[in-house]
Amino acid sequence: MDLRSPMAAVASDLLRYRARHDGGYWNTTGAARFVLVSELAPLMRADGCQTFAHGCVGGGNDQRRFARYGAQVAPGLSVIEPWTNPQALERFPDREAMLAAVAEHGLRLDPGSSAERSTDANLAGISHESAELEDLETPVTRLRPRWSNWPGQGPAEPETVTVTFLDGRVADVNGSGPDPVAWMTLANEIGARHGVWLRDVVERRIIGTVCRGIYEAPGLELLERAWSRILQASLDAAGRELYDRLAAVLGAAMYEARWLEPAAQAARDGIDRLVGEVGGSVTLSVHRGLVQVERMKVASAVVQQTRFGSGGNRWS
Amino acid sequence: MDLRSPMAAVASDLLRYRARHDGGYWNTTGAARFVLVSELAPLMRADGCQTFAHGCVGGGNDQRRFARYGAQVAPGLSVIEPWTNPQALERFPDREAMLAAVAEHGLRLDPGSSAERSTDANLAGISHESAELEDLETPVTRLRPRWSNWPGQGPAEPETVTVTFLDGRVADVNGSGPDPVAWMTLANEIGARHGVWLRDVVERRIIGTVCRGIYEAPGLELLERAWSRILQASLDAAGRELYDRLAAVLGAAMYEARWLEPAAQAARDGIDRLVGEVGGSVTLSVHRGLVQVERMKVASAVVQQTRFGSGGNRWS
Amino acid sequence: MDLRSPMAAVASDLLRYRARHDGGYWNTTGAARFVLVSELAPLMRADGCQTFAHGCVGGGNDQRRFARYGAQVAPGLSVIEPWTNPQALERFPDREAMLAAVAEHGLRLDPGSSAERSTDANLAGISHESAELEDLETPVTRLRPRWSNWPGQGPAEPETVTVTFLDGRVADVNGSGPDPVAWMTLANEIGARHGVWLRDVVERRIIGTVCRGIYEAPGLELLERAWSRILQASLDAAGRELYDRLAAVLGAAMYEARWLEPAAQAARDGIDRLVGEVGGSVTLSVHRGLVQVERMKVASAVVQQTRFGSGGNRWS
Amino acid sequence: MDLRSPMAAVASDLLRYRARHDGGYWNTTGAARFVLVSELAPLMRADGCQTFAHGCVGGGNDQRRFARYGAQVAPGLSVIEPWTNPQALERFPDREAMLAAVAEHGLRLDPGSSAERSTDANLAGISHESAELEDLETPVTRLRPRWSNWPGQGPAEPETVTVTFLDGRVADVNGSGPDPVAWMTLANEIGARHGVWLRDVVERRIIGTVCRGIYEAPGLELLERAWSRILQASLDAAGRELYDRLAAVLGAAMYEARWLEPAAQAARDGIDRLVGEVGGSVTLSVHRGLVQVERMKVASAVVQQTRFGSGGNRWS
Repeated sequence: MDLRSPMAAVASDLLRYRARHDGGYWNTTGAARFVLVSELAPLMRADGCQTFAHGCVGGGNDQRRFARYGAQVAPGLSVIEPWTNPQALERFPDREAMLAAVAEHGLRLDPGSSAERSTDANLAGISHESAELEDLETPVTRLRPRWSNWPGQGPAEPETVTVTFLDGRVADVNGSGPDPVAWMTLANEIGARHGVWLRDVVERRIIGTVCRGIYEAPGLELLERAWSRILQASLDAAGRELYDRLAAVLGAAMYEARWLEPAAQAARDGIDRLVGEVGGSVTLSVHRGLVQVERMKVASAVVQQTRFGSGGNRWS
Repeated sequence: MDLRSPMAAVASDLLRYRARHDGGYWNTTGAARFVLVSELAPLMRADGCQTFAHGCVGGGNDQRRFARYGAQVAPGLSVIEPWTNPQALERFPDREAMLAAVAEHGLRLDPGSSAERSTDANLAGISHESAELEDLETPVTRLRPRWSNWPGQGPAEPETVTVTFLDGRVADVNGSGPDPVAWMTLANEIGARHGVWLRDVVERRIIGTVCRGIYEAPGLELLERAWSRILQASLDAAGRELYDRLAAVLGAAMYEARWLEPAAQAARDGIDRLVGEVGGSVTLSVHRGLVQVERMKVASAVVQQTRFGSGGNRWS
Repeated sequence: MDLRSPMAAVASDLLRYRARHDGGYWNTTGAARFVLVSELAPLMRADGCQTFAHGCVGGGNDQRRFARYGAQVAPGLSVIEPWTNPQALERFPDREAMLAAVAEHGLRLDPGSSAERSTDANLAGISHESAELEDLETPVTRLRPRWSNWPGQGPAEPETVTVTFLDGRVADVNGSGPDPVAWMTLANEIGARHGVWLRDVVERRIIGTVCRGIYEAPGLELLERAWSRILQASLDAAGRELYDRLAAVLGAAMYEARWLEPAAQAARDGIDRLVGEVGGSVTLSVHRGLVQVERMKVASAVVQQTRFGSGGNRWS
Repeated sequence: MDLRSPMAAVASDLLRYRARHDGGYWNTTGAARFVLVSELAPLMRADGCQTFAHGCVGGGNDQRRFARYGAQVAPGLSVIEPWTNPQALERFPDREAMLAAVAEHGLRLDPGSSAERSTDANLAGISHESAELEDLETPVTRLRPRWSNWPGQGPAEPETVTVTFLDGRVADVNGSGPDPVAWMTLANEIGARHGVWLRDVVERRIIGTVCRGIYEAPGLELLERAWSRILQASLDAAGRELYDRLAAVLGAAMYEARWLEPAAQAARDGIDRLVGEVGGSVTLSVHRGLVQVERMKVASAVVQQTRFGSGGNRWS
């Protein structure tokens, strides 16, 4: 089933609301949980399903995310969570027992998954976790990225990217046109090609644990450089301060699977007002992990160029 | 008069408290005003001076900064502000008239200053403003940096930098030892050599105007990459959230010349508690504008490596 | 000219958004500045006026409020502010000189105003300032309230008030019906009769000074007791936290005359989402300054009465 | 065992830090959990105890509070929580079964406790919960207060109370002297006598449920009227704003049993700086639920009485 279109719509929201988490990374895996549940539950219902099951293990965020979004989006469906069920735990003490049972039934699962490593990929980005990477002393260079070149391995020449914003959303990336799937895909390709850098993250989980992971989100990283400059030039001081507070509310809401709750809706309404008419275009030069602003044009800047340009540097 | 030592102490504070401004840049020029007034006023008094004068023009931040710090640090000194004095304004309508008068008296001033351009440099960084750069559409590449290479002009080979933190402060940079003048100087050299990037800033000024400037702070930018990782691994979720709030208070306080006021003191006390025993070391690879973490060690991490490393990715 | 209807609409906004200031009082005088400028400017324009003048003196908030609202609501009108005009100051060094000039021209002003005392009254409330009251050691009992009885002087018997809310606004007060002028007037009468208490305020002014004043807002005080209970029962934890933050933004915005700026608009949009469907009714008993909740009904409570009522106080 | 002295010390902290919860009430029951665990655990250890047990049932806050404080204060003790133990739940399905078992062993418990009602009293205040009160439509008047008169039942004459603060703490209440047990006891007596009002509370619990309760804290309510006035006159605008933020952190920390965690320690350090030298005295008149300020003296006020008192109401 192709969920790229709703996933791209959420990626567009992540950018508009700067809904980043803990230290400023794009929590694309949390966003994917929202898309999965909100898109699949109606189809399950239409097919007459009465039970919603997910295979999340204990100790992570996703058990909570599936539970919260399930309760909101599909309140009528009953839920099976094997890891909270004593009988299921006895029958399937770990992932390997479960994979064996699956194989016994003649089914095949992606052999890439292991009990030591977890990867989650969608149109907005990829998260990497593993026993090795959890050790803070393991350098990120031990990772094998899925999409991205390392910065040093990118093309010898810089690439120029022009991002256009209209009404607070991306309207175009290098001619992609306004379809979020198109500009998200293109931004990912460009960002990945030039090694726009991976985020090395320490997550304080919903469930209380803290651990380290790595995120690849080359497209969102790239677009954010353009969007943050447009914001900086378009909002006044009080607007910028409120934007940042509401963005923090939304970053936490996406992480904690509270995207549909009233506070998150209210925060989006507030930001919609602040950026609803913000636009402009930013031309970036991308090269070996580095993103530089070449030039920009803002639809409606708060900047008053009255200091030096109009002789402001005089006595009065 | 050599103020590098107090300036380095303030730079160390800027880093410890992440006292950055508006969009996240190091407001080194605001910090220098604090150092200038707090270091010079006692000497002026000791010399029997009774009046404190500064040559700030209207429309900028520094008129307020000198006024505020002057009132706090040297409450007994009377103040002369030519630009608020009608007689002075009549006699010296602009910078050129003032420079002419200076020349008439046989004195010489740095000819680099012009009515179209303003640069302010100190051990922590440099700010650039000019009529041309104020136009948001003027690319930053039109600037001639004072310290920094452009990223593409740096050495062909990466340079490795190890930053060690003890009790929430830099204790060493590549063998510099703990003297802030030493590590600040070395960090600036390394950051400048490899073009650790300039900040292209939109400032919402104390005085109400908004304008664009460029900041070079290669040392602080470099050190921040290390410090932010140490923080991320050392604070729990509530601690991190409070740290960020207090850091925002202090970023604004430094910009607005309120560093000595009670709220800023209280914010520093709060952060002192949070980071007072935080330490570790981070090894960075610096190359052509890019700073990557090679490896790190944290004195006391909140990270509990219990998910994959200890089989957390099982059913229970 | 009768501005009670727009004033009542703003009072309804103050309540909906809990736009209170510094320590939690109803800044009704700031609200009146907004109403005055936004209602009068269009009429002035229609009459062909080209200049906007106000008589505010230095040292207070209103000089800033008239300037800010004037610039936003009537950007084309030129402004005369006598106290910033050296010629006007020479001709009219103080209030008495101005009053004398007015009298010379055969005009008469309210003799109640004096250079020692300032009162400002509108449908939402009254502010009192005077040389005597500015001294923190002067008890509030030295005041002669304009509307309110002192608590001890109210009727011997309690009065019952039922406030009904619909879609986040007052819909009725004891049968007043939904017209804000009607319910605001009635709430003021009841609150004043029973001495619902005056706020003794320390204001940190826009202009930087700090001083003490007294506010009478018996109607808003009364209604707030009902509204705060409805909110408490209707919002979830994250919604309540966001509401309080946005309310603080709006309290400051009204005080500082930034009610029409983007951040205030965004804060209102956020709260509109949170309380747009909130309703219920609260019955209060009002007696000698005391307001007690007799009973309440909430349209849609977040309260889950599952603890004791459904045996929650058991082991599991 | 007499824990009044540590309980009074915590009450003094609650006031100093205004560590109130959700809508502004004194969460005295949460504070008592902190005192109980931190005072009893060292004694248990000294007696050679190896296990820490508590009888909290599911669905409430205290299960989390005992768990959190136990883990911090007595990390070496193992814990028994009957309600999370399947065997215990089978043997004791509810409170009655447990009480029966206690009786079988010839022990006697306070017969006042029932499965329908919960009261928790300590020197700082009392919380009331019951099946009946959980219904928002049940008026608070259905409660039988433990300490307080109803406002209408208080003495016919007002009572005068003078509260003196030194270095940010209560130093005296009507001659009690500085011992917190003495002034807390006296403030409770006076507040209770005059029916200083009960808080009718909706709590959003740690565990996720929401329910309604009633709190009696006559002493803290009374003292808060004095303390808030002292604060209002002693802090500047930025100091007041930071105080309020840190107080919110501490209110939540006490509710959620995070009083000993780094963020709470840092918030206390910040407020200690802001109020460490704040002092003064406030004379209140207390009568039938109403508390009015008669007069006050502040050690070091930020109020500058320069507006009317010094002719500020002039043109310039």
